[in-house]
Amino acid sequence: MTLDDLPTPVLLLDRQRVMRNIARMRERAQLLKVILRPHLKTAKSVKVALLCHNGEAGPITVSTLAEAAYFAKAGFRDITYAVPVAPQKLQQVAEIMAMNGGTDLKIITDHVDVARAIATKGKALGVTFRTLIKIDCGLGRAGIAPNAPELLPLAEALNQPGAQLAGVLTHAGHSYGAKSIAEIERIAEEERMAAVLAASRLREAGQACEIVSVGATPTALFARHLDGITEMRPGNFVFFDLFQAGLGSCGMDDVAVSVLASVVSHHHARNHLLIDAGGLALSKDTGANLHAPGTGYGRVCRPADALPLPNMAIHDVHQEHGLVGGPHAPPVNFAAFPPGTRLRVLPNHVCMTGAMYDRYYVTDGGTEVVAEWDRVNGW
Amino acid sequence: MTLDDLPTPVLLLDRQRVMRNIARMRERAQLLKVILRPHLKTAKSVKVALLCHNGEAGPITVSTLAEAAYFAKAGFRDITYAVPVAPQKLQQVAEIMAMNGGTDLKIITDHVDVARAIATKGKALGVTFRTLIKIDCGLGRAGIAPNAPELLPLAEALNQPGAQLAGVLTHAGHSYGAKSIAEIERIAEEERMAAVLAASRLREAGQACEIVSVGATPTALFARHLDGITEMRPGNFVFFDLFQAGLGSCGMDDVAVSVLASVVSHHHARNHLLIDAGGLALSKDTGANLHAPGTGYGRVCRPADALPLPNMAIHDVHQEHGLVGGPHAPPVNFAAFPPGTRLRVLPNHVCMTGAMYDRYYVTDGGTEVVAEWDRVNGW
Repeated sequence: MTLDDLPTPVLLLDRQRVMRNIARMRERAQLLKVILRPHLKTAKSVKVALLCHNGEAGPITVSTLAEAAYFAKAGFRDITYAVPVAPQKLQQVAEIMAMNGGTDLKIITDHVDVARAIATKGKALGVTFRTLIKIDCGLGRAGIAPNAPELLPLAEALNQPGAQLAGVLTHAGHSYGAKSIAEIERIAEEERMAAVLAASRLREAGQACEIVSVGATPTALFARHLDGITEMRPGNFVFFDLFQAGLGSCGMDDVAVSVLASVVSHHHARNHLLIDAGGLALSKDTGANLHAPGTGYGRVCRPADALPLPNMAIHDVHQEHGLVGGPHAPPVNFAAFPPGTRLRVLPNHVCMTGAMYDRYYVTDGGTEVVAEWDRVNGW
Repeated sequence: MTLDDLPTPVLLLDRQRVMRNIARMRERAQLLKVILRPHLKTAKSVKVALLCHNGEAGPITVSTLAEAAYFAKAGFRDITYAVPVAPQKLQQVAEIMAMNGGTDLKIITDHVDVARAIATKGKALGVTFRTLIKIDCGLGRAGIAPNAPELLPLAEALNQPGAQLAGVLTHAGHSYGAKSIAEIERIAEEERMAAVLAASRLREAGQACEIVSVGATPTALFARHLDGITEMRPGNFVFFDLFQAGLGSCGMDDVAVSVLASVVSHHHARNHLLIDAGGLALSKDTGANLHAPGTGYGRVCRPADALPLPNMAIHDVHQEHGLVGGPHAPPVNFAAFPPGTRLRVLPNHVCMTGAMYDRYYVTDGGTEVVAEWDRVNGW
């Protein structure tokens, strides 16, 4: 089977690029002397998770309990669910912990009432919820400041029957907005210092802090050192996307996942090709335009090489329509793309794009489809 | 089962609101003397499609072949696939036409090469592809102008063995950007005139034009008359959303689909509640801010009444995190929303939000869950 035999739109995965991206991050983890606990919110795939650990079911991070259950069933026993837990989800967390003869599924919180609810529920269920305290290192999304007075009450609430403080965790998501590599390096150091400061305060107060966890793809790639850190949790790096290419985390030829689409019509007066990949097939995430204005909703490639064609961005999307070119683009060479032509679209933000598909069609860089890999979506 | 027993995030459907919205559109179709061919791209649900036709499997519109196959299997025999067809999809179209002892699945195009490919493939397969010509009435996405010279060559290419011209079809999606009801009325009239002009040109040239099809939710609601039109294809109206409420198509108490979420934390310094519905659970569509700035990524309600709480918009989303309130909002009343509180989020654009879920949890306006209805996603 080749790309020509596939329906459109579908999600393609270039295994050679994925393996290269993973090798690069494994080297980084080795150099920085930390455990690599990849965030599978991007790939949501057992096959990709195994590639991250050289074929072993190593430590991973997940963003939903659906992912946690999927990976636990597949034999992954060291999982961190890195979104603050809702108290109602604790029953399900305990059920996943019981899978496969015992899975070390860790949870996180930053609210003392939730910490108390975790211990109470753990005691009632006869389990110990291993819990990390979420620290904010500047993103401003979740977490307490590393010097916040709530840190010690949180630790005390967790070190009760039914729960156990497992460590601290932070995420420098604001590195995505950095204007330069130097700025990413600075944010990486702030991320490291936030986690280390919180861990030190806990230890000084006599609380154990086994895990000191950081990680975002940009900071994992550009941190100068990670002294005091035990693990990092980048996720996007397995695939990369146009956002990461614009930021400088990768080259265009590292982007490993794309959407296969078909040309369905030409509109000369409006200077666009119409393709059958729109807002659902690509997502409406336009973040990549921050670093590379004109990226629109994705960039178009020939299927065989998966490198962007000049001036072929998707300038607008509707639910099932993508418009390539447009009134502000140079004239489209319509003759080169008759209806039925297959194109490959590099996504702006692969975490969002991937979530619309239940599988990857895998190539080894060419046009032959060598495998189908499943994904877990939803919650 | 009540809303309190559901996991979060899930998709909720208020059946009473859906039935009221459908009754309103059925009255409009009766008044305008046109067939209602609802676009199921929004609901993607057999149960909702049946409600649109008083329990019958009446005429419908779809946006993907996955929808076409799903509805054909459920007994719907009069289906229009209203996205320009890619030539490679014709084999699958023919397979769906053969389902259930024969399904009248119509396709569309606006390119003469595709029209020729349709006839050629139909002849080769021994089927007749009933095809509508897509007309542009000002949206500028797909379709030829109603006075374009390509119209008659398209009709001639389709009226060959293997194909049949079934009519013309247009969609005034630009009515979504209207600044007033008067502007929607004007766009509705342009939509009507475009379809009628194209049909007249075909008939004057001796070509039959059975179907003259228009439709978008705003124009279907506000058209003054539809003389010369045979059918309309609104889709969003079954559920409505914050975009439509901002535009004036509906009231807040007509929005029939929402996302149930849980509060997972408080961030006093940043003035936000953190909830477990983020960019995937809600979508990153921010179009609703065009008509109602400050809508953010959705508005938050108490589960029981599903009416927006003042100053409780989702100001930012990450993949699995939603931030309610924020630095520019009035102070959040944290005490009223402890962690674990369930909230209901009205979506900006329900077509995008719904696509992330495989089912609806149905209520009759209260908090009791009376049914689960499936959806068809993907392609």
